[in-house]
Formats: sequence, C-alpha cells, structure tokens
Amino acid sequence: MKNTIVLFGLLLTSLLTYGQTLKSPNSEHELNFKLNEAGTPFYSLNYKGKEIIEESQLGLELVDDDTSLMNGFEIKEISDTIFDETWEPVWGEQSEIRNHYNELVITLEQPKEERHIIIRFRLFDEGLGFRYEFPQQKNLVYFVIKEEHTEFAMTGDHTAFWIPGDYDSQEYDYTISKLSEISGLFDDALTGNASQEQFAETGVQTSLMMKSKDGIYINLHEAALKEYSLMNLNLDESSLTFKSWLTPDAVGNKGYLQAPAVSPWRTVMVSDDATDILASNMTLNLNEPNALGDTSWIKPIKYMGVWWEMITGKSTWNYTDELPSVKLGETDYSKTIPNGKHAANTEHVKKYIDFASKHGFDALLVEGWNEGWEDWFGNSKDFVFDFVTPYPDFDVEEIHDYAKSKNIEMMMHHETSGAIRNYERHLDTAYQFMNKYGYTSVKSGYVGDIIPRGERHYGQWAINHYLYAVKKAADYKIMVNAHEAVRPTGLRRTYPNLIGNESARGTEFQAFGGSKPNHVTILPFTRLIGGPMDYTPGIFEMDISKLNPNNNSHVNATIANQLALYVTMYSPLQMAADLPEHYEQFMDAFQFIKDIAIDWDESHYLEAEPGEYITVARKAKDSSSWFLGNVNGTTPRKTKVDLDFLEKGKTYEATIYADAKDAHYKTNPQAYKISTKKVTSRSTLKLKSAAGGGFAMSIIEK
Amino acid sequence: MKNTIVLFGLLLTSLLTYGQTLKSPNSEHELNFKLNEAGTPFYSLNYKGKEIIEESQLGLELVDDDTSLMNGFEIKEISDTIFDETWEPVWGEQSEIRNHYNELVITLEQPKEERHIIIRFRLFDEGLGFRYEFPQQKNLVYFVIKEEHTEFAMTGDHTAFWIPGDYDSQEYDYTISKLSEISGLFDDALTGNASQEQFAETGVQTSLMMKSKDGIYINLHEAALKEYSLMNLNLDESSLTFKSWLTPDAVGNKGYLQAPAVSPWRTVMVSDDATDILASNMTLNLNEPNALGDTSWIKPIKYMGVWWEMITGKSTWNYTDELPSVKLGETDYSKTIPNGKHAANTEHVKKYIDFASKHGFDALLVEGWNEGWEDWFGNSKDFVFDFVTPYPDFDVEEIHDYAKSKNIEMMMHHETSGAIRNYERHLDTAYQFMNKYGYTSVKSGYVGDIIPRGERHYGQWAINHYLYAVKKAADYKIMVNAHEAVRPTGLRRTYPNLIGNESARGTEFQAFGGSKPNHVTILPFTRLIGGPMDYTPGIFEMDISKLNPNNNSHVNATIANQLALYVTMYSPLQMAADLPEHYEQFMDAFQFIKDIAIDWDESHYLEAEPGEYITVARKAKDSSSWFLGNVNGTTPRKTKVDLDFLEKGKTYEATIYADAKDAHYKTNPQAYKISTKKVTSRSTLKLKSAAGGGFAMSIIEK
Repeated sequence: MKNTIVLFGLLLTSLLTYGQTLKSPNSEHELNFKLNEAGTPFYSLNYKGKEIIEESQLGLELVDDDTSLMNGFEIKEISDTIFDETWEPVWGEQSEIRNHYNELVITLEQPKEERHIIIRFRLFDEGLGFRYEFPQQKNLVYFVIKEEHTEFAMTGDHTAFWIPGDYDSQEYDYTISKLSEISGLFDDALTGNASQEQFAETGVQTSLMMKSKDGIYINLHEAALKEYSLMNLNLDESSLTFKSWLTPDAVGNKGYLQAPAVSPWRTVMVSDDATDILASNMTLNLNEPNALGDTSWIKPIKYMGVWWEMITGKSTWNYTDELPSVKLGETDYSKTIPNGKHAANTEHVKKYIDFASKHGFDALLVEGWNEGWEDWFGNSKDFVFDFVTPYPDFDVEEIHDYAKSKNIEMMMHHETSGAIRNYERHLDTAYQFMNKYGYTSVKSGYVGDIIPRGERHYGQWAINHYLYAVKKAADYKIMVNAHEAVRPTGLRRTYPNLIGNESARGTEFQAFGGSKPNHVTILPFTRLIGGPMDYTPGIFEMDISKLNPNNNSHVNATIANQLALYVTMYSPLQMAADLPEHYEQFMDAFQFIKDIAIDWDESHYLEAEPGEYITVARKAKDSSSWFLGNVNGTTPRKTKVDLDFLEKGKTYEATIYADAKDAHYKTNPQAYKISTKKVTSRSTLKLKSAAGGGFAMSIIEK
Repeated sequence: MKNTIVLFGLLLTSLLTYGQTLKSPNSEHELNFKLNEAGTPFYSLNYKGKEIIEESQLGLELVDDDTSLMNGFEIKEISDTIFDETWEPVWGEQSEIRNHYNELVITLEQPKEERHIIIRFRLFDEGLGFRYEFPQQKNLVYFVIKEEHTEFAMTGDHTAFWIPGDYDSQEYDYTISKLSEISGLFDDALTGNASQEQFAETGVQTSLMMKSKDGIYINLHEAALKEYSLMNLNLDESSLTFKSWLTPDAVGNKGYLQAPAVSPWRTVMVSDDATDILASNMTLNLNEPNALGDTSWIKPIKYMGVWWEMITGKSTWNYTDELPSVKLGETDYSKTIPNGKHAANTEHVKKYIDFASKHGFDALLVEGWNEGWEDWFGNSKDFVFDFVTPYPDFDVEEIHDYAKSKNIEMMMHHETSGAIRNYERHLDTAYQFMNKYGYTSVKSGYVGDIIPRGERHYGQWAINHYLYAVKKAADYKIMVNAHEAVRPTGLRRTYPNLIGNESARGTEFQAFGGSKPNHVTILPFTRLIGGPMDYTPGIFEMDISKLNPNNNSHVNATIANQLALYVTMYSPLQMAADLPEHYEQFMDAFQFIKDIAIDWDESHYLEAEPGEYITVARKAKDSSSWFLGNVNGTTPRKTKVDLDFLEKGKTYEATIYADAKDAHYKTNPQAYKISTKKVTSRSTLKLKSAAGGGFAMSIIEK
C-alpha cells in the first residue's frame, strides 16, 4: 500500500470562543460550529461562499435523562488536523483511493452533569462528514437514545429525489419533487412490500439526493453504520429542515450504547458538478481500514442464476404445491407430489452450468434448492429454513462435482425470511455446509418482517446481526451478498467479504410491475452512495408475459440500457440475470456481458444528471481495456463522449452497443446496433440514447 | 421398564349430544363438557359429588380472525380411552410412576370456517388435565393467539396462596388471603426485582394453591409448556372466576402457532387431603416420555458453592471495582486493580474443593469465575459475557485438575443477564469449553430484563430458548439447572438433563431481607407442583451481618428447618449453600447433609397443610435407608409420626435432628438437639417443631 501521510496537529484550547471554522483542503467548503447561549451545538456549511446548510442543531436525546446531550455544553477542548493518505481497496472502482480531509475535533462538556462528548468534523473536497463520540468516563457509561437531534437545514425548496422514510424497506421507485411537495406525494410514492413501516408523511430515506435551483447538488447520507440504528430524515416543512429520525426497537428506544462508543458519520456532499457526488469516496474513507487480514480469498464474481425464472413466475422456488405448510425434519418431501415447476433440480441446474461455463462466467446462483419454500413467506414462521437440507431433486454433491468439472463455482442462497434467531442458530452449520461443498459466496435474504417480532430491518438489533453474519462468514472465508438487509454505508472497507447488498428496488421489480425507466439514473446518486448494489441487470426479454402468461410486467429498459448497467451500476458482483435462451437470441449483445470487467483501476464519471442520464468510463484492473456505459432517462438524448482518458499514443478498438434509431424502452426495447471503431485518446464519439435506453462500449487496446 | 398397559378404546360418535361426561378411575372426579347454543365449549368438574369448578368457558381468541376459536362449534367426534401404565423416571421422588387416567377426546368443528380443533381431557385420581390440539388441516395453518380464554370458575371465596401475576419473575413471598382480597393486597405483595412486570391487580401465577372453606384443596397449573407462552391467571372478582392470561411478546401477541400443534395441559388437582396434591405425578404423566435415549450421563448432584459469600455481600462476583464498564476482548483485566474481595480465585476455590471433597460432595459451583461481572447487571448489556474467558485469578485448568484429584466435579455457571441472543451466539463454544474442562453440569441464570427488549421471561420466545439450551446441552451430555427461567412444567420427563430450576423465591432472598418463615411450607404446593426446585438450603448462620456488616438480613429458619429442606424440598440437585466455616461450627448437624440421599425409590407425604407444615418420608434409591423431614410455619407445633412405611421385621436406627426446646427462627435459630433411637415399622415418634423450625431424620437399617 502506498501511503503518503502528512499530519499537522494544532491544539487550540479556548473556553471563550464559541465559533469554530474548518475549511476543506481545496477551501471550497467551509464548516462553522458554535454553541448558543444555552450551550446547544450548531453547525452550518458553505460551499464556494454560498450557504448550503443553514445553522443546524446537533445533539442527542436520551431516555430517562432530563438534560440529555442536547444543551448545557461548553467547549472543553478543540483540535484540528490535516490528513492525507492513499490506500488500496481489495476490490473497487479504483485501485487507489485518496483520503484527504481537514478535521476539527470539538470536546463538549456538560459541567453540571460532569460528562463530555466529542463531535468530530471532517471536511473533504466533496463535502462534510461528522459524528458524535462518547469517550469512556465515569458519568456516561450506559445510555439509551430516545432520538438523535441532528439537523440539516436546507436553504431553499430544493428538488429532491426521494423514497418514503421506512423502517424496513428501500424497494420504492423514486419520486422527484420539491421538498415542499413530499408530504402531498407521499401516499402515491408508497408501493406494497413484504415488510414496510413508515413513520411520517414527511419522512424520507438516505442517501437523499437534492439539487438546488442554483444547480448545486447536495447529498445527505451516513457512513459506517454499526452498533446503531439507521437514520431516516424527517422534513420540517415550515423551516425546510431535515431532522434525523432513528429506527426504533420493539419498545420504541432508538439505540443502546456503552461508552466508549461512536455514532455513524453523517455525510453532506455538495458540488456544482453532479459527477463529483458519484465519484466521491467519502463513505469509504470514513470507514475503518480492512480488519480481515488476508483477503486473498475475496474476488469479484460474474454469475448467472436459477432465479429470474422464479421471479417472473415461470417456475417456483417450492418443490410441491400439495402442502399447506411444512415442518422441517418432520415433513417427508419424498412422499409429496412435485409440482413439476421446481427449477432448482439437478438436470436443469446442469444446463445453466453448461451455459455459464461455456460463456466464461465464474459462478451460478441457485435459489429454491432447499426444503422449506412451501410456506416461507408471510407466515411469521420462526424455524423456516435450516440452510442445509436440499429438496429431493437437488443433488448437492453431484451438482458441486459437475460445476467444478466445468470451472463454475456454485453460489449459495440463504433466504432467512427475516427470522434472524433461526438464521443465527444455523449459521455455523450453514457455513460449514458451504465449505464442504465448495460454495465460496452466499446471497442472503431477509424477506418479510423481522423475527424477533417488533424489531425492524433497520433497527440496531438487525444491524448488529447483519454484521455478525458477515464477520462469521469471514471466519469461514465466505463472501456475503445480503439482500433486504440494511443499505450499505461503507463497511466493505473494513469487511471486504461484504461484496454486495441489494437493499433498494432492483431488477426483480421489473417483473413485479416494472420500475420507472429513469430509476437507474437515480440509484447511483442515492442507494449507491453507500456502496455497490447487486442490481442483477442483463434482461434481454422485456415482455415478461413470454415467460409467464400470468405476468404482464414489462422491463422498462432497452437492451443497450441493460448492457450499460454493468458499467454504470457499480458492483463487484455482476449477474447476467436473464435465462440462457434469451441470451442465445442475442449472442452479439451478450458478448458485452462476457467481456465486461468487474474490478477496476480507474473510474471516470463523465457526465451525470440525477433522473436523466449517467455516463461512466472505467479501466479494467491490471489491463489496458476500458468500458463505458450510459443510461438514459425518459427523454431521448444525444451525448458526446471525449475519450481523453485513454492512454496517449495507444490505439484501441471500440465496440459500441447502442440503441437502434427507433429503440424505446416500452415499444421497441430489443432494437440495438453494434458497431466497431478505431479510437485513441483524441477521439470523440457522438451517440444517441433512446428513452430508457443507453449505450455500452468496450475499448480494447490494439 | 416394567409396563402394564391396559387400553380399551371406545368410539362414540354423536352429533346430537351436547353433554359429555368423564369420570376418574376411582370415580371421585367427574368432568362434564358441553356446548351451549352458540357453540361455545364449557366444562365443569365435580369431586366426590361436590362442584369444584362451575361451568367454565374454553376457547382461544385469534389475531385477525373475527370468529376465532371461541364459538360456532359443533361436536364432530368423541372418543374415550382408559390408560394405565407404569414407567421409570431417570431420577425422581419414586423409582416407578403409575400413569393412570380416563381420557375423553372431543373434536369440535366450526362448519362455517371449515376447520376443527380437539380438546383432550384426562381425569386422574388426583384431578384433571386438558389441552387444546390443532390438527393439520387446510383452513387452520398459521395462526396467532390474541388470548386464550380458558376459565376456572371457583365455587366460593376460597383461601389462596398466591404471588402476583407477572411476566418476568416468580421471586415473591406468598400471600395467604381470600380470593376477594387479592386485589387489595396486591401492592403489598409486590417486592422489587431485577425484572418484573405485572398486568393486573387481580393477576396471580400458577401453580395456584387454594383451600375451600369445606377443606377441599384445589391446585391450578399447567404441564408441558413448550412452543407457547406461560399462562398466568386473572381473577374476575364478580364471579370468582380465574381466566387464563397468556404472556405477550414485544408487539402484544400471545403465541404463534403452526398446525399441527398443541397447547400445554391445564391442570386442576383436587383433594380433601393436602398430601394428595404434593404426591401427585400428574404433571410428569402429562409430559412426553424421555426423548434423549441414553441417559447414563445424567445423575443427581450434591454440591457446594462459591456463591453464598457473594449473595450475602461478603465477597464479590466481579474482579475489580475500578472500571465503570467493561468490553469483553478489549478490557485488559491484568491491568486493573483487583478489589481483593473476588471470591472466585484459584486458592480460595481450592479450599472449597478440599472441604467438599472431605465431606463426600459430588461437585462445586463457582460463580464469578469469568470476565464481565463489573457491569453485568441492570445495563441492558448485549455482549455481556462470553462464557469462556476466566478472570486473571481463576486458573481453569489448575482448578479442574485439582478438583479431579479430589474426586470433585466443577459445576459451571452461565449467567446470561437475560441477553438471550448473546447466550445463543456463544452456546456451542460455551458447552465445548465445559466438555474440555470436565464440567458436566451448568447453573444458568437470566437475571434482568430479557434482550431482545420487549420480550419477557415467560413469553413464547424465551420459553423456546430455554428448551433450545437444554436440548443442545444434551447433545454435549450436559445437565442444566436454569435459574430465572420459566418455572418447570414437567419437561424433565422428556429431557431428563433438565435437572433443576429456581424460578421462585429461593434461599438467596433470606440474604436480601429474608423470606417469610412459612415460605417453605407453601412452595411445594405451588412452585414444586411443576418440578423440583434448586432451593439451595443448608444455611447454619442466620445472622447475615456476621458475614457482611452492611447486610442486616436474617435467615428466617432454624437449623433443623434447614436440614429438613433436603427432604421436603424435592430436588435431584441439593446444595449445602453456607460457607464451610459455618458448617465447621456445627459438624454434628452437618452430618445430616452428608448423609442425605438425593434420589429416591419412594416418597410418602405424611401430613401437610399449606402455610403451616409439611412432613415427608423418603426411601433412598437402591437402599434400605429412609429420610424424614418436617418444615413448620410460624406456629410451634407438635407432630406424631408413624413409621409404618418402614419395612416390616427390620430394625433401624433413627438419628433425629430437631429444634431445641427454645428454638425460634428469629431469636434462637441455631438451637437444635440430636438424638438417636431404635425404631421399627411399628414405632411412633412424637416431635415438636419451633416457629420456622422443623426436624430431619435419617433412618438407617441396623
């Protein structure tokens, strides 16, 4: 790891100064901190001289504590630091990441209660991160959070790209509106989900993307969420101030802390260039370095899956339709009538293995392989799966051997149905089973309300569990891709075996009625600020009724758009989600998926506008190859791409997968054209993207 | 196993009969069942021609179900059976137990909902057991209980021996009052506890002991409580009817069931002789037979403990007083200042081992051996113990080797602080640690509110956990003695490694201010109906200020009473709880504890009156020796004991440990006299018991 660390420590002790200032390394951001006369802490943020966050309160309200950590503070100590270091992630959008910030650490004391806390501010060139710290001390040992009172006072009625605040789900389409319009549009924004719970019609989730009428982009999120509950935001409509709203547990408390402890970082990214938001590494930089030691067993994965055919309803996860319910260990499946639609059977899986192997994939996911799917959903069932007992038609060993002979790894699936205690009871044996049969990665799921009942997906209890499962997986050298878990906040720096999460509205919703065609132009500004998303793109057959006549969903994207996602929707896990027979119809387009790299030396966000378009160029790791992608919203658009990121003096061949002239996500999604072109660093390409379309490009050195 | 099974099956199908009758084998009890016109089920119970339970409703109210399982029933099928079998428990009060009942099975159908349930009644010579059954069927699959509506309509304002209804604790002194007086006395009956939650001032726990003014004894309880929540009783004062009140989970639901399922048995014992209640094996007989297979590793245990000195405050569980809190794995105890009062240190433990070994004990319990005791209590701490890391002054291996050389087994201690998830996460490694260091039994504790927060000690969630821990312990051939867990209900028949529970107000409360002197004359009628209690008797020094000047508690018992408890308070685990130095002051009395058997061929309850006295005689297993015990309440009393249970023609020597003439639990508790006497089966002994006193007797064949 190449490190360049420059540290200057300056200690300023001032009991009489109430205003503190910090600037970013490039001086464009300025943070101001103060205490008012009641000893309440406030901060504000300027960008290029303009106020972006007006004076906003900080503090925490505690249970059974009249004063709480809200006011009565005095500044006890101040220090500031400059930090500049480069580090290498195990996998990522870049092979090197610079962590460069100016830090201000303020120790606040409550003289009456004889206790103190710390607020630590870090200003990066792209924005601010800050958190609360609770040092070990006599008068602050165990405390329970009633609510955190961190505010983000907006300076105007910005445009926001938002989903409803919720304790259990992020799987909503985005709504674009003014802040003042949120409450009025809230009910329309709510779509059904297996597990969901809102708290206010002015509540929204993070990361929250906004754009001011002056064209300033603002993003609010959190980083390093662990041992704490998730922060939603509640808008105070009268003041246009967002207030932190933590996730309660079963009895309404919002966090149990034992000092020494820290809160997650609250992040505010600001730029007049939207691509700065996408390119920011702030979330990762605010997380702790790798804690796992040896990471040689962690690798990005390109995979296919016996999955989409169940999502569309063409096949089933469950083996039989005969039983109203099952009891694991008591139900004898060999005595039931198979429904004939169970996709996870040995012969069918082998066909997928053949296809995946032939086309150079790394792994195959199979869902529905294990006993318990007949009543897994919606029953609040505790002992729902044991994660080790296959159905009668799924021969684990034979499949493993066959896959191995074809150079394919099997990807495990652990659907937990939200029954966390049950999962933890089986976790060691489940991971041992994986080791025994050569599964190196697992997709886990938490569909449905959490058990213990009353807990939420985004509460401290569940958040503790998700990390517990990841850390234990590392003991077994297993990589984890957790769906329906909490959205990531950069913990993948510390635990690089956390290679994926869903935790947002993914491709499956295209088969559940469809998602908005510009959804993929918003997600990188919202969900992906915290980390990669296993979006599972690559759908070539948009008319779902062709897979299942009872499902009239339509995938609101063109094929070119689907190819572009492998570039624009960053993930070290990339799935070619469709059925082999659909790829076989379009093998020339499929070639891009076969060629796309999944780990990167460099990433350049060329242009971006949330809700409208994103264009990204990435250089494959340890390779001279580049890949480009553009995803487009609902308005057809022309774009001009300068290839000045290519290495000077080299000649490349670009293969361009673009929308055909008359392509349209709804009426003509499968129309694309492929062309090749010689390019250099001095080339400029002009391309057109259809509504819900885009383009993808592989650029190979010649 | 000697079995005598006589089965007669009679099938009576009657769609038109609404009244059904069942009699006990000795015909003294009569059960009547009927449906009223609304199809609501009722039962009533007579004893020797007198009504004991007036017409009482049955049924269950379900969440999200308008009809519930309350009315609209029709009788679909009726069958009755006679059952008579003898079986042998692995350990117990008797080497053989007869299970003899008449059974009535009624299938009730709701034609409109097209679903059915079963109510199964079993009448024994000592009373009634009945339960609900939910067979597998199409229209009853998953259901959530809002409340069970089982009623027990009393025929008069009986005297009751009760403790407040509570979701988390049974550690109350008993109150003796009329039913109508309960609500008025409720607040006085409440003493503080680390975890407690009441639901109504008319709520009481089971087993509930009562005596009618006609001198009929009535006991209400439950048997085979698993996969269900605990039943308290709520008194309807206007009708003097007790109604079942289940324990809610964090969101207020009272049970999650998946058919096929059964409720626990609700039991009603009735007799005009109080000793019949104590002698009843109904609870065990209603439980499933041994499920563990080989039980050769399960043995009763006579033990001592490094425990009482901490309970009294003479020593501490924790190692240091220096830290406000600890974080396991982060806190370096070797760098802290030991408080000099940590009893669980190697040298001190060895002294106990020496004493226990010298006097023929099986095992030594040591509490406070492991890291984490500095902040274990009252902090709702999740990762509170890891169960495998000893304090710096407790050398596990050295102590194990030393104990082994002295023929003593170490008894493990797992205090969980109610943090159930934490305990389960560590359970396998904790049990493996025990196997590694030769611990064959564990005392577990659940002091403090349950985590997950919102769950209760007596809710379905925790009840599932307690059994999970016992079953997993059996996999490791470990015996479990669970304190603060749910009170037992006979599961020890199915899982004989569950050798003990506390789950009531035990001896420790004598050091927390004292318990009522007649407490031990009530417990066998209440707490022990469900199973043995690790009461940990044998205190010889009643003035606790002699151990800890800051603790003015007084043990409200005489030494003779403490000795008697080894006979009257049945348990396969028997602790000599006091400090060795106190036994050394009274070695002649201590001899009884050394001699007492802990497993029995026969048990005879000679005389008993709840709140006043109990006298029991037991024959040691595979031995001709007998042991007697009498515990007395607050009124000095004379008793006459016929020894006609002794084997005819044999001569025995009885050693009698009795209260001295002027003994009194408060003013003169240590005054006792020991005498010996030759006795035969024709002997009668006259003895006097002091207030809070008693006598103990060993009768050895000569």
